[in-house]
Amino acid sequence: MTADLSVVPSEFQSRLTLARRETDAVLDRLLPAPSGHQSVIMEAVRYAILGGGKRFRPFLLAECARVFGHDHRSVWAAGAALECIHAYSLVHDDLPCMDDDDLRRGRPTLHKKFDEAIAVLAGDALQTHAFEILAGLEIPAETKCELISGLASASGVSGMIGGQVIDIQADEKSRNEQLITELQRLKTGALIRYAAQAGSILGGAPEKDRLNLCQYAEDLGLIFQITDDILDVEGDAATLGKAVKKDENLGKATFVSILGLVGAKEKAKQLADRAKGRLAPYGEKAQILVETVDYILVRDR
Amino acid sequence: MTADLSVVPSEFQSRLTLARRETDAVLDRLLPAPSGHQSVIMEAVRYAILGGGKRFRPFLLAECARVFGHDHRSVWAAGAALECIHAYSLVHDDLPCMDDDDLRRGRPTLHKKFDEAIAVLAGDALQTHAFEILAGLEIPAETKCELISGLASASGVSGMIGGQVIDIQADEKSRNEQLITELQRLKTGALIRYAAQAGSILGGAPEKDRLNLCQYAEDLGLIFQITDDILDVEGDAATLGKAVKKDENLGKATFVSILGLVGAKEKAKQLADRAKGRLAPYGEKAQILVETVDYILVRDR
Repeated sequence: MTADLSVVPSEFQSRLTLARRETDAVLDRLLPAPSGHQSVIMEAVRYAILGGGKRFRPFLLAECARVFGHDHRSVWAAGAALECIHAYSLVHDDLPCMDDDDLRRGRPTLHKKFDEAIAVLAGDALQTHAFEILAGLEIPAETKCELISGLASASGVSGMIGGQVIDIQADEKSRNEQLITELQRLKTGALIRYAAQAGSILGGAPEKDRLNLCQYAEDLGLIFQITDDILDVEGDAATLGKAVKKDENLGKATFVSILGLVGAKEKAKQLADRAKGRLAPYGEKAQILVETVDYILVRDR
Repeated sequence: MTADLSVVPSEFQSRLTLARRETDAVLDRLLPAPSGHQSVIMEAVRYAILGGGKRFRPFLLAECARVFGHDHRSVWAAGAALECIHAYSLVHDDLPCMDDDDLRRGRPTLHKKFDEAIAVLAGDALQTHAFEILAGLEIPAETKCELISGLASASGVSGMIGGQVIDIQADEKSRNEQLITELQRLKTGALIRYAAQAGSILGGAPEKDRLNLCQYAEDLGLIFQITDDILDVEGDAATLGKAVKKDENLGKATFVSILGLVGAKEKAKQLADRAKGRLAPYGEKAQILVETVDYILVRDR
């Protein structure tokens, strides 16, 4: 009997699956179960964050820590905290006063499933949980404070929130390549960069390696967004699970509308080469991070 | 020449003024100045938190620390963080999907001055700033983590957010004395309690004193709410700077509608006696906290 090698998952796939499973388990354990007169808010928080998701950021965090030999279970709790920030931003971005979205991952958005007030409060609560989880990690207090400062910085007005503000405020004329690069660097890039920062902090990496991995993650975040824009034009709605050509229909400039399809693909390829180059000093230990670049580059959803 | 003693501020008044001045100064220093393409969010954050306010919570925090001889400037930064959480909760509570208020302290609410999206994001940013400020305090990291865990717990689904959820969800029939006590204990009480908790943590108070001061602050929070309900019926709109009889007009049960005016005043008096009793072990060192009880009890706004 010979094994069917085509169905044996690669190490990369195994690690991605592990990250999803571990993150979901930690979130389920750390988020309060519905109880008391306010049980609806615990239900809403759980609906918002336990409804699927690839857990790419926790995966990236854990893999960056592994480059430095760190494989302690604290990476999954730190990843869960990061995922709480990501989830809160999605809940608030979906609100009627922002993107006014009815669907998220094929399910009703939180304000559709519950109501707007609960969606605002559940987003608020998810942010609170993120910092509560980090402050409760079983690691030295100095490291916890570093992780907390970093997460606040990445998600605040000079990070994720700042990017969202630029996105809702910038008029069409000002959306050149420089502006949308800056916008995406903050809006989606800051949390992806933080995954690398937190992972290398937990891994005890020297300062220059932390910076290097953060730069790798910045490239990764930009590739992620460019690929998103390409999928928005080329993708299949059924595979994506959301409406395609959304930004184009909204008249919003994207990397594709500015650089053209060929130009956007070329830029993504250049960034991918640069990102992989940054991993050269770590050799085999960064193999999963190298494959992550291709995973982001060639994904179909 | 004899001094006019009637205009010499009492020590209590001086401490209250000091807390307001120090908290405002710390907030002005720690919150980022408007810059970049997202400068509007920094403006909105500053509008929301630097527009007045008595800074009662920072005052209480600093005074609880002083009971244990702690008078380091870190109390003002910790108080500023607490004030960020308080301010974010007001911004989100004022939103159209919640209380739909147009005025706050005599000025347009944030979503009226800017727009709803900016109000949601500025509230989010204020919460982020709270944890960023605590993580950046110049005190031992263990203490910072204690302060961060405590603030997350006080402001989350088992604290302030939980109270707000009960308030928007509870139907009129279920609003008996027990429920509104629980609701207020969380919605407004949790942050007032945290002021005492953070102050006594910074003061290095033994566990039993921390608990004792937290219980004092719980009574204080309840007195605060009962007095609010009494002012809502008896108060003068011009002095209060907001519409009176608001809860009554909304048909919401209050301590006054349940206990009657006489009963509510009696309850506040009983709580005041109990709160002062808890301060007996600290003698003169708790004199300002004793006066704080009367300040809350007899305030006219």
